[in-house]
Amino acid sequence: MKTISLIEPRLLKGFKDFSPKEQKLRQQYFSLIQSVFELYGFLPLATPALEYKEILLNKYGDEEKLVYSFMDPGGREVALRYDLTVPLARFVALNLPDLTLPFKRYQVAPVWRAENPQAGRRREFYQCDIDIVGSASVNADAEIIACVSKALEAVGVKNFKIHYSSREVFGVFFNEPQFNISNITEIIRAIDKLAKLGKDGVLDILRAEKFSVDQMMQVEKFIELAESENAMEQLGAFSNTGNDLVVSLRALLQATQALGVRKEALIFNPSIARGLDYYTGMVFEVMLTDVNALGAVASGGRYDNLISQYSKQNLPCVGGSIGVDRLFEYLNGLNTLEAKAPAKVLLLNMSQAMSLEYLRIAEDLRAKNIACEVYFEPVKMDKQFKYALSLGIPYVLIYGEAEQQQGVCKLKDLTTRVETVMSFKEAAAKLAD
Amino acid sequence: MKTISLIEPRLLKGFKDFSPKEQKLRQQYFSLIQSVFELYGFLPLATPALEYKEILLNKYGDEEKLVYSFMDPGGREVALRYDLTVPLARFVALNLPDLTLPFKRYQVAPVWRAENPQAGRRREFYQCDIDIVGSASVNADAEIIACVSKALEAVGVKNFKIHYSSREVFGVFFNEPQFNISNITEIIRAIDKLAKLGKDGVLDILRAEKFSVDQMMQVEKFIELAESENAMEQLGAFSNTGNDLVVSLRALLQATQALGVRKEALIFNPSIARGLDYYTGMVFEVMLTDVNALGAVASGGRYDNLISQYSKQNLPCVGGSIGVDRLFEYLNGLNTLEAKAPAKVLLLNMSQAMSLEYLRIAEDLRAKNIACEVYFEPVKMDKQFKYALSLGIPYVLIYGEAEQQQGVCKLKDLTTRVETVMSFKEAAAKLAD
Repeated sequence: MKTISLIEPRLLKGFKDFSPKEQKLRQQYFSLIQSVFELYGFLPLATPALEYKEILLNKYGDEEKLVYSFMDPGGREVALRYDLTVPLARFVALNLPDLTLPFKRYQVAPVWRAENPQAGRRREFYQCDIDIVGSASVNADAEIIACVSKALEAVGVKNFKIHYSSREVFGVFFNEPQFNISNITEIIRAIDKLAKLGKDGVLDILRAEKFSVDQMMQVEKFIELAESENAMEQLGAFSNTGNDLVVSLRALLQATQALGVRKEALIFNPSIARGLDYYTGMVFEVMLTDVNALGAVASGGRYDNLISQYSKQNLPCVGGSIGVDRLFEYLNGLNTLEAKAPAKVLLLNMSQAMSLEYLRIAEDLRAKNIACEVYFEPVKMDKQFKYALSLGIPYVLIYGEAEQQQGVCKLKDLTTRVETVMSFKEAAAKLAD
Repeated sequence: MKTISLIEPRLLKGFKDFSPKEQKLRQQYFSLIQSVFELYGFLPLATPALEYKEILLNKYGDEEKLVYSFMDPGGREVALRYDLTVPLARFVALNLPDLTLPFKRYQVAPVWRAENPQAGRRREFYQCDIDIVGSASVNADAEIIACVSKALEAVGVKNFKIHYSSREVFGVFFNEPQFNISNITEIIRAIDKLAKLGKDGVLDILRAEKFSVDQMMQVEKFIELAESENAMEQLGAFSNTGNDLVVSLRALLQATQALGVRKEALIFNPSIARGLDYYTGMVFEVMLTDVNALGAVASGGRYDNLISQYSKQNLPCVGGSIGVDRLFEYLNGLNTLEAKAPAKVLLLNMSQAMSLEYLRIAEDLRAKNIACEVYFEPVKMDKQFKYALSLGIPYVLIYGEAEQQQGVCKLKDLTTRVETVMSFKEAAAKLAD
């Protein structure tokens, strides 16, 4: 091997290693979430990390600039996936004839965004997504919200509220001809920042973009409604289309509650718009009530036009996503899960001459499904004990020449520090408990 | 949303979607492999997909050109990980004070290589890796081989041979001063292609690189030994260093067998060199005996100098890797695993008016851990039955107005086509089986 000067070991900004203790817990979270998804009949899908850049572009609004894109060695413009929704739409368009509809899929996988890293936000993070393709039913909307809510509960999150609305609420306010607003997107993007910037902040954005006085007044009206205690009632009284929308929102509420979501957890919040451009109907964001800084820990909505960008046949879609990495430190703080020890027992290595025998004993235990380790070298006992203690391995098995002669072993419980002489059969039975 | 002309939905060459049926099986393979890794006390680690480019460079020999690298939006030279070994070495160098040694970790994650796609080789594929950092013991070498072998058996692979050797065998042949070979790497890379190119192919490569007649004769001698029936005996007789190496190879064999690997599965094959430059000692490749085209489906070896490229403190390392995606079609052909149905039961949607009741029943079943689905819309029955049949959902639950009045439901077994009237309690008990 060539001699090379020392390379500084470092991580890219916004990226993280998950140490064994962290990753063990993380895998348990993923697995609990997946189990809930499967309880609702969602099926796993895996798509590549890299896609053609043109497939990802023009879907994310002003977050577009955060997509990692580059030219691959074959000269193709490619990009790392920014979310799991657009790749799903691409998959559906590509495989439509083979799919059974409604197509309900989940995907637990990393996505990449060149964001400015901050608390709970990194440039690589896992999303746990569920989506239903091919149903426009309110039952599908409700199932997404309920399943996300149950998955959060499964990993131990209790204190959260589900803020929901519909993108159609903007139509109720701004589609009237007298407002002459050809593209509603800028208004939606500004109002989406209401919780962060406040009313004046939103109005400042729009004023800078030269919206008319009439238009600004309507935006103010919208914000007043959004911030009022009885937003749903006011929306119903606003106009006929407002009333129609309230009827469908109430149906959504009922279906979500029938699926076991508590009424108190659901808050109608018309300022929830979601940053991404592809949403068309129901939208929701889940906020923790005991931690503010994390922002939405889950979110989603209906996007009925996305597939039509890749296919002549369109299909209505609705989905939700849990940002489990954003939740990670919070979840660990809850202490609801404990990371399992790597092995149940460490076989102490007491003599080079007995080395092969240790390996055979370990093999026997593994055949009985007992996770175990042999210390590789016959080093000092206290070093071997330290290894077991530091990894949380609960037992050590002591088998030296004395024990060999008597055909027994000693099993030491590292918690109680009690050492018991027994046969290998007894030790295996004890460890299999 | 802006109107956009249709974007062709397509996958990048060398990349693949895993459909729900495929991904379900794949997740089962991953899970079986991880269980074996954990049985040996390996702990999970997660490292980022992106690393600083300089960390990945100069580690892979002539495969270097296959690394996906680019400049990130912050102007950093970054690269997608090419394997899981170099990121591990970077992690260890960065976290050495916090690690308990030996550090035994596993990682199941995708890597990216801009290879020319061919049967079983894609540009994105999963590796299932185990590594032991901080032990130079032959027991560690043996544990890697045994654990990889058991993991392959766990996913149903039976017909395989483990070709093993040591990089030191090249030292035995070429480190003598009279050969004046300053850099042995080119010889190793050429001999590594023996199985593919044959003796003449290897000699042609070296002749083109202007090795001397003496040197070429020694390479020929090496190949003769590698291709002979009793390579181990010949190596022992070759020189004193050859004899020392044979003693340590026999110890490796014994330890591997003590860990339950059948003797017949192990083949000493000195031409196994592994393409990657970082190997220093034991190397191995697992080949299927019933399929030739796949090449090595698992491989690994000892790399005692890699960490010293990132840290002043060096640590001996050994590891192995299973290319489960390369095995994927082969494993599916074995039919040892069956993909589970998404749900146990589909609740037929027979009436819009009963919609909320269906959702409540589904919620009750899920609370009993029974995976179930409600058909979202009250469409024609045959469409709903088709959905269940096409996804392999084994039961449908029929609950219309007639059943509602009698306080019963009908459970239909889609395999036997038998429909039974029962209470919800009985249905839940039946489905929980």
